[in-house]
Amino acid sequence: MTNTIDTANTTTAARSADPAAGAGPRTVAAYAAPAPKAPLERTTVPRRALGEHDILIDIRFAGICHSDIHQVAEDWGDGIFPMVPGHEIAGVVAEVGPGVTRWTVGDRVGVGCFVDSCRECANCLAGLQQYCTGTPGAVYTYNGVGHDGEPTYGGYSTQLVVDEGYALRIPDALPLDVAAPLLCAGITLYSPLNHWGAAPGKKVAVVGLGGLGHMGVKIAHAMGAEVTVLSQSLRKREDGLRLGADHYRATSDPATFTELAGTFDLIVNTVSADLDLSAYLGLLRTDGTLVQVGAPERPVSINAHTLLIGRRSVSGSMIGGLPETQEMLDFCAAHGIGAEIELISADQINDAYARVLTSDVRYRFVIDTATI
Amino acid sequence: MTNTIDTANTTTAARSADPAAGAGPRTVAAYAAPAPKAPLERTTVPRRALGEHDILIDIRFAGICHSDIHQVAEDWGDGIFPMVPGHEIAGVVAEVGPGVTRWTVGDRVGVGCFVDSCRECANCLAGLQQYCTGTPGAVYTYNGVGHDGEPTYGGYSTQLVVDEGYALRIPDALPLDVAAPLLCAGITLYSPLNHWGAAPGKKVAVVGLGGLGHMGVKIAHAMGAEVTVLSQSLRKREDGLRLGADHYRATSDPATFTELAGTFDLIVNTVSADLDLSAYLGLLRTDGTLVQVGAPERPVSINAHTLLIGRRSVSGSMIGGLPETQEMLDFCAAHGIGAEIELISADQINDAYARVLTSDVRYRFVIDTATI
Repeated sequence: MTNTIDTANTTTAARSADPAAGAGPRTVAAYAAPAPKAPLERTTVPRRALGEHDILIDIRFAGICHSDIHQVAEDWGDGIFPMVPGHEIAGVVAEVGPGVTRWTVGDRVGVGCFVDSCRECANCLAGLQQYCTGTPGAVYTYNGVGHDGEPTYGGYSTQLVVDEGYALRIPDALPLDVAAPLLCAGITLYSPLNHWGAAPGKKVAVVGLGGLGHMGVKIAHAMGAEVTVLSQSLRKREDGLRLGADHYRATSDPATFTELAGTFDLIVNTVSADLDLSAYLGLLRTDGTLVQVGAPERPVSINAHTLLIGRRSVSGSMIGGLPETQEMLDFCAAHGIGAEIELISADQINDAYARVLTSDVRYRFVIDTATI
Repeated sequence: MTNTIDTANTTTAARSADPAAGAGPRTVAAYAAPAPKAPLERTTVPRRALGEHDILIDIRFAGICHSDIHQVAEDWGDGIFPMVPGHEIAGVVAEVGPGVTRWTVGDRVGVGCFVDSCRECANCLAGLQQYCTGTPGAVYTYNGVGHDGEPTYGGYSTQLVVDEGYALRIPDALPLDVAAPLLCAGITLYSPLNHWGAAPGKKVAVVGLGGLGHMGVKIAHAMGAEVTVLSQSLRKREDGLRLGADHYRATSDPATFTELAGTFDLIVNTVSADLDLSAYLGLLRTDGTLVQVGAPERPVSINAHTLLIGRRSVSGSMIGGLPETQEMLDFCAAHGIGAEIELISADQINDAYARVLTSDVRYRFVIDTATI
């Protein structure tokens, strides 16, 4: 387990750049689910030839996001198989296309949940590529279809080809292993905390202390907010306080909802399970917002009266755009924030999936892709 | 029916100030429901002696709000009977207490949904008295209990005693009859339109063209927004366009939801009936907000995924505070905005209630309190 930032894996040397490979299409090692709900196994997948503005990334680490498990299970709709999950990718630039201006070989880079977007809609132009409304729209890093019509394969892999504009710079102060989960979990929490103004003098609650929630605690604390974790039990209380929470309350205790009524400026709900959202809304002060960063499979039920009393809001937020993701990485580097991770080898992926489903991880599994 | 602003009832002469009455407690004529769901009938109710900072208002007109009917029917909880509804009150100052500084006899004033609040909580100090969090908190104009422990009786009455700070100035340009509904319907729409930035370049939808909705169309149009009415049918289309809507679409037509997807910056939902809110959320553009100004009796169901895709929000808004209500009255006066009303006599109140329940009013019943 790696719980603190070290500098052991900050080397910028390109590990596996193979001049013989040239810029042509290639086949790379990966872990894939061959079919819906099937265990992941070692395989190979194609990576496209480097285009004018493409870069080849040697992937060093890939985080395991709960959504990887949902996608393999087709919980959210049909999947494309074989499926190589992984959208928390940290690595090093190994080759660059002839027109690439942003990167040079050896640069430390990350790739998050999308690898392309329309680049023309108002949201793309505003740097909100995650909300791209173009046709074709945002291309997800895996289980998506590129603008070239080819399926996308994610980060549980040794190499990735991506347009230079869709990679982010990982500052030297951030070790690559603890940086990987920032590309999804980090930005998923940073964006709503930033958008809804977490800052000194603001009271922020983070619901759930898992892969997402623990990033929320660290980031909200670094932003200067007073942070409360709302968790089902007090089991992870020590962790929560160590990560930066000022308070830790159990939602299984009814007193939490009476004593904290009308308290919070912002509540970020990282729990996808069905919760009584109206009860949480009662914890908001006037003009407060409860932000969903995960979507329960069933519709959520809300007592509208609770919204009216105090001009409260329920909102949603989904990852972040490219400029904000870079801003997040820079913020995390400046504040010494990485994810709390358990580093695993590729042959442990299926075990890790099983443990994620029982919340048995503190707080993110990260695959050492050298073991693929 | 009075559909245009005239100056017939703008006299500022105190009609019934009776020097003999002095400043003592008095009994005034009123229309009250003697019991839950009972028809309203003529009766008398007490009004307190004028306190240091109280004013006596000769009520001239009182609007009939749909919530009056809900309260008489105890749809929202236990009521206090006899109940004199009415929180859309326009009249003239008839007497002033010795410490009153804001008003003189003859001033044209309005009283809305509350007649007192704690005056000390952060919301009261910020002018958001409608969200008063004090103990005792906001005192509703009727079916409430004053800080003196006495029940409050509303505007279906000839006179009212109220603290000078809880009356609003009705500008001379606004006839009192069409001004009365502004005190609830007007501010209920003005406040969210103002708070969420209806303005030139913004696309605003108003769901429902009733007592609330028609005020929303007028005010949003005057704020410079591009206004669309979303109504079940096109039955009131001519009215909607005349009142200031740029577009009028039927929600019974599925094409409305596909063609207008991702269009609106703001949707104000004035309909308390159960609607498929997720469908309406799909009409919002990125960062758009759907504001509930009425609360359906049953919890509303929302597909959280629709919130995430585009950082959308569902919010609630309840009337407005004193400063904003004054701002609204001044805005309406400046833009020649009054409610569209059907003026009735007191003996028509029960018929009017029945017609409100079938949406058979364009667009607000107003009681001429001289007929009580």
